[in-house]
Amino acid sequence: MVNSADPAELAARIMLAVEQRMLALTTEMSAPGVTSAGQQAAAARHHLASGGRRVRARLAVHAGIALGLADADIIAIASAVELLHNASLVHDDLQDQDPDRRGATAVWVAFGNDVAICTGDLLLSAAYRSVADLHSLSHLPAVLRLMHAAINAVIGGQCDDLAARAMPVHDLATYQTIAKAKTGPLLGLPVALALLLAGHEAQLTDVQTAAECFGLAYQIKDDIADVDDDRAHSGRAAKLNVVAVLAQSMSATESVLQAKQLCLANVDRAINIAMALPNGSGMMLAGLATAMVKAAA
Amino acid sequence: MVNSADPAELAARIMLAVEQRMLALTTEMSAPGVTSAGQQAAAARHHLASGGRRVRARLAVHAGIALGLADADIIAIASAVELLHNASLVHDDLQDQDPDRRGATAVWVAFGNDVAICTGDLLLSAAYRSVADLHSLSHLPAVLRLMHAAINAVIGGQCDDLAARAMPVHDLATYQTIAKAKTGPLLGLPVALALLLAGHEAQLTDVQTAAECFGLAYQIKDDIADVDDDRAHSGRAAKLNVVAVLAQSMSATESVLQAKQLCLANVDRAINIAMALPNGSGMMLAGLATAMVKAAA
Repeated sequence: MVNSADPAELAARIMLAVEQRMLALTTEMSAPGVTSAGQQAAAARHHLASGGRRVRARLAVHAGIALGLADADIIAIASAVELLHNASLVHDDLQDQDPDRRGATAVWVAFGNDVAICTGDLLLSAAYRSVADLHSLSHLPAVLRLMHAAINAVIGGQCDDLAARAMPVHDLATYQTIAKAKTGPLLGLPVALALLLAGHEAQLTDVQTAAECFGLAYQIKDDIADVDDDRAHSGRAAKLNVVAVLAQSMSATESVLQAKQLCLANVDRAINIAMALPNGSGMMLAGLATAMVKAAA
Repeated sequence: MVNSADPAELAARIMLAVEQRMLALTTEMSAPGVTSAGQQAAAARHHLASGGRRVRARLAVHAGIALGLADADIIAIASAVELLHNASLVHDDLQDQDPDRRGATAVWVAFGNDVAICTGDLLLSAAYRSVADLHSLSHLPAVLRLMHAAINAVIGGQCDDLAARAMPVHDLATYQTIAKAKTGPLLGLPVALALLLAGHEAQLTDVQTAAECFGLAYQIKDDIADVDDDRAHSGRAAKLNVVAVLAQSMSATESVLQAKQLCLANVDRAINIAMALPNGSGMMLAGLATAMVKAAA
Protein backbone atom coordinates (compact mmCIF):
# COMPACT_ATOMS: atom_id res chain seq x y z
CA MET A 1 0.00 0.00 0.00
CA VAL A 2 1.52 3.35 -1.08
CA ASN A 3 1.27 5.97 1.64
CA SER A 4 -0.72 9.03 0.76
CA ALA A 5 0.30 12.51 1.92
CA ASP A 6 -3.34 13.28 2.73
CA PRO A 7 -4.36 11.67 6.05
CA ALA A 8 -8.07 11.79 5.14
CA GLU A 9 -7.41 9.94 1.89
CA LEU A 10 -5.22 7.43 3.70
CA ALA A 11 -7.92 6.91 6.34
CA ALA A 12 -10.56 6.34 3.64
CA ARG A 13 -8.33 3.78 1.92
CA ILE A 14 -7.69 1.93 5.19
CA MET A 15 -11.41 1.96 6.06
CA LEU A 16 -12.15 0.30 2.71
CA ALA A 17 -9.62 -2.42 3.56
CA VAL A 18 -11.25 -2.81 6.99
CA GLU A 19 -14.65 -3.43 5.38
CA GLN A 20 -13.15 -6.08 3.10
CA ARG A 21 -11.29 -7.71 5.99
CA MET A 22 -14.38 -7.92 8.19
CA LEU A 23 -16.36 -9.57 5.39
CA ALA A 24 -13.56 -11.98 4.51
CA LEU A 25 -13.07 -13.14 8.12
CA THR A 26 -16.78 -13.85 8.68
CA THR A 27 -18.00 -15.12 5.33
CA GLU A 28 -15.10 -17.26 4.09
CA MET A 29 -15.83 -20.96 4.11
CA SER A 30 -13.95 -22.85 6.77
CA ALA A 31 -12.10 -25.33 4.58
CA PRO A 32 -12.05 -26.72 1.05
CA GLY A 33 -14.74 -29.37 0.66
CA VAL A 34 -16.90 -27.95 3.43
CA THR A 35 -20.22 -27.14 1.80
CA SER A 36 -22.01 -25.42 4.66
CA ALA A 37 -25.27 -23.74 3.71
CA GLY A 38 -23.71 -20.87 5.59
CA GLN A 39 -26.65 -19.19 7.32
CA GLN A 40 -24.14 -17.69 9.77
CA ALA A 41 -22.11 -16.21 6.91
CA ALA A 42 -25.22 -14.85 5.21
CA ALA A 43 -26.32 -13.33 8.52
CA ALA A 44 -22.91 -11.74 9.10
CA ARG A 45 -23.04 -10.26 5.59
CA HIS A 46 -26.59 -8.98 6.21
CA HIS A 47 -25.57 -7.38 9.49
CA LEU A 48 -22.34 -5.79 8.21
CA ALA A 49 -24.13 -4.48 5.10
CA SER A 50 -26.50 -2.50 7.32
CA GLY A 51 -23.60 -0.12 7.75
CA GLY A 52 -23.43 2.12 10.75
CA ARG A 53 -20.84 4.85 11.22
CA ARG A 54 -18.02 2.41 12.06
CA VAL A 55 -17.04 4.78 14.87
CA ARG A 56 -14.77 2.24 16.60
CA ALA A 57 -12.90 1.33 13.42
CA ARG A 58 -12.48 5.03 12.58
CA LEU A 59 -11.18 5.74 16.09
CA ALA A 60 -8.52 3.07 15.59
CA VAL A 61 -7.64 4.35 12.12
CA HIS A 62 -7.37 7.95 13.30
CA ALA A 63 -5.21 7.03 16.31
CA GLY A 64 -3.12 4.59 14.26
CA ILE A 65 -2.31 7.20 11.60
CA ALA A 66 -1.57 9.85 14.25
CA LEU A 67 0.87 7.46 15.93
CA GLY A 68 2.52 6.40 12.65
CA LEU A 69 1.55 2.72 12.80
CA ALA A 70 1.95 0.48 9.74
CA ASP A 71 -1.17 0.26 7.57
CA ALA A 72 -1.42 -3.53 8.08
CA ASP A 73 -1.44 -3.12 11.86
CA ILE A 74 -4.07 -0.37 11.69
CA ILE A 75 -6.30 -2.58 9.51
CA ALA A 76 -5.89 -5.49 11.94
CA ILE A 77 -6.89 -3.55 15.08
CA ALA A 78 -9.61 -1.49 13.37
CA SER A 79 -11.25 -4.66 12.01
CA ALA A 80 -10.95 -6.32 15.42
CA VAL A 81 -12.67 -3.54 17.39
CA GLU A 82 -15.43 -3.11 14.82
CA LEU A 83 -16.08 -6.88 14.71
CA LEU A 84 -16.30 -6.94 18.52
CA HIS A 85 -18.78 -4.08 18.50
CA ASN A 86 -20.91 -5.77 15.86
CA ALA A 87 -20.83 -9.08 17.73
CA SER A 88 -22.26 -7.25 20.74
CA LEU A 89 -24.95 -5.58 18.59
CA VAL A 90 -26.15 -8.91 17.15
CA HIS A 91 -26.46 -10.45 20.61
CA ASP A 92 -27.85 -7.25 22.21
CA ASP A 93 -30.61 -6.96 19.61
CA LEU A 94 -31.65 -10.54 20.35
CA GLN A 95 -31.59 -9.94 24.11
CA ASP A 96 -33.49 -6.65 23.82
CA GLN A 97 -35.83 -8.05 21.13
CA ASP A 98 -35.06 -4.94 19.08
CA PRO A 99 -36.42 -5.78 15.61
CA ASP A 100 -34.47 -3.11 13.68
CA ARG A 101 -30.82 -2.30 13.29
CA ARG A 102 -29.78 0.73 11.23
CA GLY A 103 -33.00 0.66 9.18
CA ALA A 104 -32.64 -3.05 8.31
CA THR A 105 -34.07 -6.05 10.13
CA ALA A 106 -32.00 -7.28 13.07
CA VAL A 107 -30.26 -10.64 12.51
CA TRP A 108 -32.56 -12.48 14.97
CA VAL A 109 -35.61 -11.29 13.00
CA ALA A 110 -34.17 -12.07 9.56
CA PHE A 111 -32.46 -15.39 10.43
CA GLY A 112 -33.96 -16.56 13.74
CA ASN A 113 -32.64 -16.64 17.32
CA ASP A 114 -30.35 -19.65 16.81
CA VAL A 115 -28.50 -18.16 13.86
CA ALA A 116 -28.25 -14.82 15.70
CA ILE A 117 -26.44 -16.54 18.58
CA CYS A 118 -24.07 -18.28 16.14
CA THR A 119 -23.46 -15.09 14.14
CA GLY A 120 -22.49 -13.09 17.22
CA ASP A 121 -20.08 -15.90 18.17
CA LEU A 122 -18.60 -15.85 14.67
CA LEU A 123 -18.05 -12.07 14.74
CA LEU A 124 -16.44 -12.33 18.19
CA SER A 125 -14.08 -15.08 17.08
CA ALA A 126 -13.26 -13.20 13.86
CA ALA A 127 -12.18 -10.19 15.95
CA TYR A 128 -9.46 -12.29 17.60
CA ARG A 129 -8.55 -13.86 14.25
CA SER A 130 -8.04 -10.35 12.87
CA VAL A 131 -5.16 -9.55 15.23
CA ALA A 132 -3.31 -12.69 14.09
CA ASP A 133 -2.30 -10.49 11.12
CA LEU A 134 -0.46 -7.92 13.28
CA HIS A 135 3.14 -7.39 12.14
CA SER A 136 4.10 -6.25 15.59
CA LEU A 137 4.26 -9.77 17.10
CA SER A 138 5.78 -8.79 20.45
CA HIS A 139 2.64 -6.81 21.34
CA LEU A 140 0.19 -9.59 20.43
CA PRO A 141 -0.19 -11.07 23.97
CA ALA A 142 -0.95 -7.62 25.42
CA VAL A 143 -3.41 -7.00 22.55
CA LEU A 144 -5.27 -10.23 23.43
CA ARG A 145 -5.32 -9.28 27.12
CA LEU A 146 -6.71 -5.80 26.41
CA MET A 147 -9.37 -7.25 24.11
CA HIS A 148 -10.54 -9.79 26.68
CA ALA A 149 -10.53 -7.21 29.50
CA ALA A 150 -12.76 -4.93 27.41
CA ILE A 151 -15.11 -7.78 26.49
CA ASN A 152 -15.25 -9.01 30.09
CA ALA A 153 -16.18 -5.49 31.25
CA VAL A 154 -18.81 -5.01 28.53
CA ILE A 155 -20.40 -8.40 29.26
CA GLY A 156 -20.52 -7.52 32.97
CA GLY A 157 -22.17 -4.21 32.12
CA GLN A 158 -24.67 -5.89 29.81
CA CYS A 159 -25.62 -8.51 32.43
CA ASP A 160 -25.97 -5.85 35.13
CA ASP A 161 -28.06 -3.74 32.75
CA LEU A 162 -30.37 -6.68 32.05
CA ALA A 163 -30.55 -7.55 35.77
CA ALA A 164 -31.55 -3.94 36.52
CA ARG A 165 -34.84 -4.56 34.68
CA ALA A 166 -35.85 -7.24 37.15
CA MET A 167 -34.54 -5.36 40.19
CA PRO A 168 -34.69 -1.60 39.53
CA VAL A 169 -31.62 0.53 40.30
CA HIS A 170 -32.22 3.22 42.92
CA ASP A 171 -28.87 4.99 43.20
CA LEU A 172 -26.87 7.02 40.72
CA ALA A 173 -23.56 5.35 41.63
CA THR A 174 -24.82 1.93 40.51
CA TYR A 175 -26.25 3.45 37.34
CA GLN A 176 -22.91 5.04 36.52
CA THR A 177 -20.97 1.81 37.09
CA ILE A 178 -23.28 -0.10 34.74
CA ALA A 179 -23.41 2.63 32.06
CA LYS A 180 -19.62 3.05 32.06
CA ALA A 181 -19.01 -0.68 31.68
CA LYS A 182 -21.64 -1.09 28.98
CA THR A 183 -20.29 1.39 26.45
CA GLY A 184 -16.89 2.71 27.55
CA PRO A 185 -14.55 -0.27 27.16
CA LEU A 186 -15.24 -0.89 23.45
CA LEU A 187 -14.99 2.86 22.72
CA GLY A 188 -11.62 3.10 24.46
CA LEU A 189 -10.22 -0.11 23.00
CA PRO A 190 -9.46 1.27 19.48
CA VAL A 191 -7.31 4.09 20.86
CA ALA A 192 -5.83 1.86 23.57
CA LEU A 193 -4.69 -0.76 21.02
CA ALA A 194 -3.11 1.92 18.82
CA LEU A 195 -1.26 3.42 21.80
CA LEU A 196 -0.12 -0.05 22.88
CA LEU A 197 1.32 -0.85 19.44
CA ALA A 198 3.09 2.54 19.46
CA GLY A 199 4.70 1.80 22.83
CA HIS A 200 2.61 4.18 24.96
CA GLU A 201 1.52 1.65 27.63
CA ALA A 202 1.60 4.35 30.31
CA GLN A 203 -1.37 6.14 28.71
CA LEU A 204 -3.74 3.14 28.70
CA THR A 205 -5.41 4.13 31.99
CA ASP A 206 -6.11 7.64 30.67
CA VAL A 207 -7.75 6.23 27.56
CA GLN A 208 -9.94 3.99 29.68
CA THR A 209 -11.05 6.89 31.87
CA ALA A 210 -11.78 9.13 28.87
CA ALA A 211 -13.75 6.38 27.14
CA GLU A 212 -15.75 5.58 30.29
CA CYS A 213 -16.70 9.26 30.71
CA PHE A 214 -17.60 9.45 27.03
CA GLY A 215 -19.58 6.19 27.20
CA LEU A 216 -21.42 7.34 30.32
CA ALA A 217 -22.30 10.69 28.70
CA TYR A 218 -23.46 8.84 25.58
CA GLN A 219 -25.75 6.56 27.62
CA ILE A 220 -27.20 9.52 29.53
CA LYS A 221 -27.90 11.38 26.27
CA ASP A 222 -29.60 8.23 24.91
CA ASP A 223 -31.58 7.84 28.13
CA ILE A 224 -32.87 11.42 27.98
CA ALA A 225 -34.02 10.87 24.39
CA ASP A 226 -35.56 7.46 25.13
CA VAL A 227 -37.09 8.02 28.56
CA ASP A 228 -40.69 7.50 27.41
CA ASP A 229 -39.84 4.48 25.21
CA ASP A 230 -37.78 2.81 27.95
CA ARG A 231 -40.65 2.96 30.45
CA ALA A 232 -42.85 0.82 28.20
CA HIS A 233 -40.32 -1.38 26.43
CA SER A 234 -42.08 -3.88 24.15
CA GLY A 235 -44.05 -5.41 27.00
CA ARG A 236 -40.86 -6.34 28.86
CA ALA A 237 -39.60 -4.79 32.08
CA ALA A 238 -38.54 -1.13 31.96
CA LYS A 239 -35.01 -0.48 30.68
CA LEU A 240 -32.43 1.09 32.99
CA ASN A 241 -32.64 4.87 32.46
CA VAL A 242 -30.83 7.61 34.37
CA VAL A 243 -33.84 9.97 34.28
CA ALA A 244 -35.98 7.30 35.99
CA VAL A 245 -33.23 6.68 38.57
CA LEU A 246 -32.96 10.40 39.38
CA ALA A 247 -36.75 10.90 39.37
CA GLN A 248 -36.99 8.67 42.45
CA SER A 249 -35.66 11.58 44.54
CA MET A 250 -36.67 14.72 42.58
CA SER A 251 -39.26 16.06 40.15
CA ALA A 252 -39.39 14.86 36.52
CA THR A 253 -38.22 18.25 35.21
CA GLU A 254 -35.36 18.42 37.70
CA SER A 255 -34.25 14.87 36.89
CA VAL A 256 -33.91 15.70 33.17
CA LEU A 257 -31.92 18.85 33.99
CA GLN A 258 -29.63 17.00 36.35
CA ALA A 259 -29.11 14.21 33.78
CA LYS A 260 -28.05 16.84 31.23
CA GLN A 261 -25.57 18.35 33.68
CA LEU A 262 -24.10 14.93 34.43
CA CYS A 263 -23.78 14.29 30.70
CA LEU A 264 -21.94 17.58 30.12
CA ALA A 265 -19.60 17.10 33.08
CA ASN A 266 -18.53 13.71 31.76
CA VAL A 267 -18.15 14.98 28.20
CA ASP A 268 -15.87 17.76 29.47
CA ARG A 269 -13.71 15.30 31.35
CA ALA A 270 -13.52 12.97 28.34
CA ILE A 271 -12.47 15.84 26.06
CA ASN A 272 -9.77 17.07 28.44
CA ILE A 273 -8.18 13.65 28.85
CA ALA A 274 -8.51 12.68 25.17
CA MET A 275 -6.90 15.94 23.97
CA ALA A 276 -3.84 15.25 26.12
CA LEU A 277 -3.09 11.81 24.61
CA PRO A 278 0.21 11.44 22.65
CA ASN A 279 0.51 12.75 19.06
CA GLY A 280 -3.14 13.82 18.92
CA SER A 281 -4.20 10.18 18.97
CA GLY A 282 -7.29 11.08 21.05
CA MET A 283 -8.43 13.99 18.86
CA MET A 284 -11.19 12.06 17.15
CA LEU A 285 -12.54 10.84 20.49
CA ALA A 286 -12.47 14.46 21.72
CA GLY A 287 -14.20 15.54 18.50
CA LEU A 288 -16.97 12.98 18.93
CA ALA A 289 -17.48 14.21 22.48
CA THR A 290 -17.63 17.84 21.34
CA ALA A 291 -20.19 16.95 18.66
CA MET A 292 -22.30 15.27 21.31
CA VAL A 293 -22.37 18.44 23.44
CA LYS A 294 -23.49 20.52 20.46
CA ALA A 295 -26.23 18.03 19.62
CA ALA A 296 -27.42 18.05 23.24
CA ALA A 297 -27.38 21.86 23.56
CA MET B 1 6.55 -26.32 38.20
CA VAL B 2 8.91 -29.26 38.89
CA ASN B 3 8.61 -31.93 36.21
CA SER B 4 7.51 -35.33 37.42
CA ALA B 5 8.93 -38.55 36.00
CA ASP B 6 5.44 -40.07 35.97
CA PRO B 7 3.44 -38.77 32.96
CA ALA B 8 0.10 -39.61 34.61
CA GLU B 9 1.01 -37.58 37.69
CA LEU B 10 2.27 -34.73 35.51
CA ALA B 11 -0.96 -34.81 33.48
CA ALA B 12 -3.06 -34.71 36.68
CA ARG B 13 -1.07 -31.72 37.96
CA ILE B 14 -1.48 -29.86 34.67
CA MET B 15 -5.23 -30.63 34.58
CA LEU B 16 -5.59 -29.06 38.03
CA ALA B 17 -3.86 -25.92 36.74
CA VAL B 18 -6.19 -25.94 33.71
CA GLU B 19 -9.25 -25.95 36.01
CA GLN B 20 -7.87 -23.02 37.96
CA ARG B 21 -6.97 -21.12 34.80
CA MET B 22 -10.45 -21.57 33.28
CA LEU B 23 -12.08 -20.28 36.46
CA ALA B 24 -9.70 -17.34 36.79
CA LEU B 25 -10.19 -16.20 33.18
CA THR B 26 -13.99 -16.23 33.40
CA THR B 27 -14.73 -15.14 36.94
CA GLU B 28 -12.12 -12.45 37.61
CA MET B 29 -13.53 -8.96 37.82
CA SER B 30 -12.61 -6.81 34.87
CA ALA B 31 -10.86 -3.96 36.66
CA PRO B 32 -10.36 -2.48 40.12
CA GLY B 33 -13.38 -0.44 41.12
CA VAL B 34 -15.76 -2.33 38.86
CA THR B 35 -18.47 -3.69 41.09
CA SER B 36 -20.43 -5.82 38.64
CA ALA B 37 -23.06 -8.09 40.18
CA GLY B 38 -21.39 -10.62 37.92
CA GLN B 39 -24.23 -12.88 36.83
CA GLN B 40 -22.03 -13.94 33.89
CA ALA B 41 -19.20 -14.91 36.26
CA ALA B 42 -21.58 -16.84 38.53
CA ALA B 43 -23.02 -18.61 35.49
CA ALA B 44 -19.55 -19.52 34.19
CA ARG B 45 -18.67 -20.91 37.63
CA HIS B 46 -21.95 -22.88 37.73
CA HIS B 47 -21.32 -24.32 34.28
CA LEU B 48 -17.65 -25.21 34.83
CA ALA B 49 -18.48 -26.79 38.22
CA SER B 50 -20.83 -29.24 36.49
CA GLY B 51 -17.68 -31.03 35.45
CA GLY B 52 -17.66 -33.21 32.39
CA ARG B 53 -14.76 -35.38 31.37
CA ARG B 54 -12.70 -32.46 30.02
CA VAL B 55 -11.85 -34.66 27.03
CA ARG B 56 -10.53 -31.79 24.92
CA ALA B 57 -8.26 -30.45 27.67
CA ARG B 58 -6.99 -33.97 28.33
CA LEU B 59 -6.30 -34.50 24.62
CA ALA B 60 -4.17 -31.34 24.62
CA VAL B 61 -2.37 -32.34 27.82
CA HIS B 62 -1.63 -35.85 26.53
CA ALA B 63 -0.37 -34.58 23.17
CA GLY B 64 1.58 -31.75 24.79
CA ILE B 65 3.40 -34.09 27.19
CA ALA B 66 4.09 -36.59 24.38
CA LEU B 67 5.63 -33.82 22.30
CA GLY B 68 7.66 -32.37 25.18
CA LEU B 69 5.99 -28.97 25.33
CA ALA B 70 6.57 -26.64 28.28
CA ASP B 71 3.95 -26.98 31.06
CA ALA B 72 2.89 -23.33 30.67
CA ASP B 73 2.17 -23.81 26.97
CA ILE B 74 0.22 -27.01 27.62
CA ILE B 75 -1.91 -25.24 30.24
CA ALA B 76 -2.58 -22.35 27.83
CA ILE B 77 -3.79 -24.52 24.93
CA ALA B 78 -5.66 -27.05 27.11
CA SER B 79 -7.58 -24.22 28.84
CA ALA B 80 -8.29 -22.62 25.47
CA VAL B 81 -9.80 -25.72 23.82
CA GLU B 82 -11.85 -26.62 26.90
CA LEU B 83 -13.18 -23.06 27.21
CA LEU B 84 -14.17 -23.11 23.52
CA HIS B 85 -16.00 -26.40 23.99
CA ASN B 86 -17.83 -25.11 27.04
CA ALA B 87 -18.78 -21.89 25.26
CA SER B 88 -20.40 -24.03 22.57
CA LEU B 89 -22.23 -26.14 25.20
CA VAL B 90 -23.74 -23.09 26.91
CA HIS B 91 -25.03 -21.71 23.61
CA ASP B 92 -26.08 -25.16 22.25
CA ASP B 93 -28.14 -25.93 25.36
CA LEU B 94 -29.99 -22.63 24.91
CA GLN B 95 -30.57 -23.28 21.21
CA ASP B 96 -31.69 -26.88 21.82
CA GLN B 97 -33.66 -25.90 24.95
CA ASP B 98 -31.91 -28.77 26.75
CA PRO B 99 -32.67 -28.14 30.45
CA ASP B 100 -29.89 -30.33 31.89
CA ARG B 101 -26.15 -30.41 31.52
CA ARG B 102 -24.14 -33.14 33.26
CA GLY B 103 -26.82 -33.64 35.91
CA ALA B 104 -27.03 -29.93 36.77
CA THR B 105 -29.36 -27.29 35.33
CA ALA B 106 -28.21 -25.74 32.06
CA VAL B 107 -27.10 -22.11 32.31
CA TRP B 108 -30.14 -20.78 30.41
CA VAL B 109 -32.45 -22.50 32.93
CA ALA B 110 -30.52 -21.41 36.02
CA PHE B 111 -29.70 -17.84 34.90
CA GLY B 112 -32.03 -17.05 31.96
CA ASN B 113 -31.50 -16.77 28.21
CA ASP B 114 -29.80 -13.38 28.30
CA VAL B 115 -27.13 -14.40 30.79
CA ALA B 116 -26.61 -17.67 28.87
CA ILE B 117 -25.79 -15.70 25.71
CA CYS B 118 -23.37 -13.46 27.66
CA THR B 119 -21.75 -16.44 29.43
CA GLY B 120 -21.05 -18.27 26.16
CA ASP B 121 -19.48 -15.07 24.82
CA LEU B 122 -17.35 -14.75 27.94
CA LEU B 123 -16.08 -18.36 27.68
CA LEU B 124 -15.29 -17.86 23.97
CA SER B 125 -13.34 -14.67 24.66
CA ALA B 126 -11.53 -16.29 27.60
CA ALA B 127 -10.33 -19.07 25.28
CA TYR B 128 -8.48 -16.51 23.15
CA ARG B 129 -7.24 -14.73 26.27
CA SER B 130 -5.77 -18.03 27.45
CA VAL B 131 -3.31 -18.30 24.55
CA ALA B 132 -1.94 -14.84 25.35
CA ASP B 133 0.06 -16.73 28.01
CA LEU B 134 1.91 -18.94 25.48
CA HIS B 135 5.68 -18.72 25.84
CA SER B 136 6.12 -19.72 22.25
CA LEU B 137 5.28 -16.28 20.81
CA SER B 138 6.26 -17.02 17.22
CA HIS B 139 3.45 -19.59 16.93
CA LEU B 140 0.74 -17.32 18.37
CA PRO B 141 -0.62 -16.01 15.02
CA ALA B 142 -0.98 -19.58 13.69
CA VAL B 143 -2.64 -20.61 16.96
CA LEU B 144 -5.22 -17.82 16.55
CA ARG B 145 -5.83 -18.84 12.92
CA LEU B 146 -6.35 -22.52 13.83
CA MET B 147 -8.73 -21.57 16.65
CA HIS B 148 -10.85 -19.35 14.42
CA ALA B 149 -10.90 -21.93 11.60
CA ALA B 150 -12.18 -24.57 14.06
CA ILE B 151 -14.82 -22.20 15.49
CA ASN B 152 -15.91 -21.11 12.02
CA ALA B 153 -16.35 -24.76 11.00
CA VAL B 154 -18.24 -25.69 14.18
CA ILE B 155 -20.57 -22.70 13.86
CA GLY B 156 -21.25 -23.66 10.23
CA GLY B 157 -22.03 -27.23 11.34
CA GLN B 158 -24.29 -26.01 14.14
CA CYS B 159 -26.24 -23.67 11.82
CA ASP B 160 -26.62 -26.42 9.20
CA ASP B 161 -27.72 -28.84 11.92
CA LEU B 162 -30.37 -26.40 13.13
CA ALA B 163 -31.47 -25.65 9.55
CA ALA B 164 -31.89 -29.42 8.96
CA ARG B 165 -34.78 -29.40 11.46
CA ALA B 166 -36.77 -27.00 9.31
CA MET B 167 -35.76 -28.66 6.02
CA PRO B 168 -35.06 -32.36 6.63
CA VAL B 169 -31.87 -33.87 5.20
CA HIS B 170 -32.46 -36.69 2.71
CA ASP B 171 -28.96 -37.78 1.75
CA LEU B 172 -26.14 -39.34 3.70
CA ALA B 173 -23.47 -37.07 2.17
CA THR B 174 -25.11 -33.94 3.58
CA TYR B 175 -25.54 -35.64 6.96
CA GLN B 176 -21.84 -36.52 7.03
CA THR B 177 -20.74 -32.99 6.14
CA ILE B 178 -22.85 -31.53 8.93
CA ALA B 179 -21.89 -34.16 11.54
CA LYS B 180 -18.15 -33.82 10.75
CA ALA B 181 -18.23 -30.05 11.06
CA LYS B 182 -20.28 -30.09 14.26
CA THR B 183 -17.98 -32.21 16.42
CA GLY B 184 -14.69 -32.87 14.62
CA PRO B 185 -12.95 -29.47 14.58
CA LEU B 186 -12.98 -28.94 18.37
CA LEU B 187 -11.85 -32.55 18.96
CA GLY B 188 -8.94 -32.15 16.55
CA LEU B 189 -7.92 -28.71 17.77
CA PRO B 190 -6.21 -29.84 21.04
CA VAL B 191 -3.87 -32.21 19.20
CA ALA B 192 -3.45 -29.78 16.28
CA LEU B 193 -2.35 -26.96 18.60
CA ALA B 194 0.14 -29.22 20.39
CA LEU B 195 1.60 -30.38 17.05
CA LEU B 196 1.80 -26.79 15.84
CA LEU B 197 3.71 -25.65 18.93
CA ALA B 198 6.08 -28.64 18.49
CA GLY B 199 6.78 -27.65 14.88
CA HIS B 200 4.82 -30.44 13.17
CA GLU B 201 2.74 -28.21 10.84
CA ALA B 202 2.79 -30.92 8.14
CA GLN B 203 0.62 -33.23 10.27
CA LEU B 204 -2.23 -30.74 10.81
CA THR B 205 -4.31 -32.10 7.91
CA ASP B 206 -4.03 -35.65 9.27
CA VAL B 207 -5.26 -34.53 12.69
CA GLN B 208 -8.20 -32.78 11.11
CA THR B 209 -9.16 -35.91 9.13
CA ALA B 210 -8.82 -38.19 12.17
CA ALA B 211 -10.89 -35.84 14.32
CA GLU B 212 -13.58 -35.51 11.66
CA CYS B 213 -13.88 -39.31 11.37
CA PHE B 214 -13.97 -39.60 15.16
CA GLY B 215 -16.54 -36.81 15.45
CA LEU B 216 -18.71 -38.34 12.76
CA ALA B 217 -18.57 -41.76 14.46
CA TYR B 218 -19.42 -40.11 17.79
CA GLN B 219 -22.46 -38.36 16.30
CA ILE B 220 -23.66 -41.58 14.68
CA LYS B 221 -23.32 -43.47 17.98
CA ASP B 222 -25.30 -40.68 19.71
CA ASP B 223 -27.91 -40.76 16.97
CA ILE B 224 -28.41 -44.52 17.33
CA ALA B 225 -28.90 -44.11 21.09
CA ASP B 226 -31.19 -41.08 20.73
CA VAL B 227 -33.25 -42.01 17.68
CA ASP B 228 -36.58 -42.16 19.55
CA ASP B 229 -35.91 -39.00 21.58
CA ASP B 230 -34.80 -37.03 18.52
CA ARG B 231 -38.04 -37.79 16.65
CA ALA B 232 -40.11 -36.04 19.33
CA HIS B 233 -37.73 -33.35 20.59
CA SER B 234 -39.47 -31.18 23.23
CA GLY B 235 -42.21 -30.17 20.85
CA ARG B 236 -39.69 -28.67 18.39
CA ALA B 237 -38.86 -30.01 14.96
CA ALA B 238 -37.11 -33.41 14.80
CA LYS B 239 -33.33 -33.32 15.31
CA LEU B 240 -31.02 -34.42 12.51
CA ASN B 241 -30.40 -38.17 13.00
CA VAL B 242 -28.51 -40.54 10.71
CA VAL B 243 -30.92 -43.41 11.39
CA ALA B 244 -33.83 -41.27 10.22
CA VAL B 245 -31.86 -40.18 7.12
CA LEU B 246 -31.05 -43.81 6.21
CA ALA B 247 -34.57 -45.04 7.00
CA GLN B 248 -35.87 -42.97 4.09
CA SER B 249 -34.47 -45.62 1.70
CA MET B 250 -34.43 -48.85 3.77
CA SER B 251 -36.13 -50.61 6.67
CA ALA B 252 -35.75 -49.37 10.25
CA THR B 253 -33.68 -52.44 11.24
CA GLU B 254 -31.42 -52.10 8.22
CA SER B 255 -30.90 -48.38 8.84
CA VAL B 256 -29.63 -49.05 12.38
CA LEU B 257 -27.27 -51.76 11.09
CA GLN B 258 -25.92 -49.54 8.34
CA ALA B 259 -25.46 -46.66 10.82
CA LYS B 260 -23.41 -48.99 13.05
CA GLN B 261 -21.21 -50.02 10.11
CA LEU B 262 -20.64 -46.40 9.13
CA CYS B 263 -19.70 -45.64 12.74
CA LEU B 264 -17.17 -48.48 12.87
CA ALA B 265 -15.61 -47.62 9.50
CA ASN B 266 -15.00 -44.05 10.63
CA VAL B 267 -13.66 -45.15 14.00
CA ASP B 268 -11.18 -47.45 12.24
CA ARG B 269 -9.98 -44.66 10.01
CA ALA B 270 -9.64 -42.28 12.96
CA ILE B 271 -7.60 -44.84 14.92
CA ASN B 272 -5.24 -45.58 12.01
CA ILE B 273 -4.48 -41.91 11.35
CA ALA B 274 -4.23 -40.96 15.04
CA MET B 275 -1.80 -43.80 15.83
CA ALA B 276 0.57 -42.58 13.13
CA LEU B 277 0.92 -39.03 14.53
CA PRO B 278 4.42 -38.00 15.77
CA ASN B 279 5.68 -39.14 19.21
CA GLY B 280 2.42 -40.91 20.07
CA SER B 281 0.68 -37.52 20.29
CA GLY B 282 -2.52 -39.05 18.88
CA MET B 283 -2.62 -42.10 21.18
CA MET B 284 -5.30 -40.70 23.46
CA LEU B 285 -7.52 -39.83 20.48
CA ALA B 286 -6.98 -43.39 19.19
CA GLY B 287 -7.78 -44.73 22.67
CA LEU B 288 -11.03 -42.76 22.86
CA ALA B 289 -12.01 -44.12 19.47
CA THR B 290 -11.21 -47.70 20.54
CA ALA B 291 -13.29 -47.29 23.71
CA MET B 292 -16.17 -46.08 21.58
CA VAL B 293 -16.07 -49.26 19.45
CA LYS B 294 -16.13 -51.45 22.56
CA ALA B 295 -19.07 -49.51 23.99
CA ALA B 296 -20.96 -49.84 20.69
CA ALA B 297 -20.22 -53.58 20.32
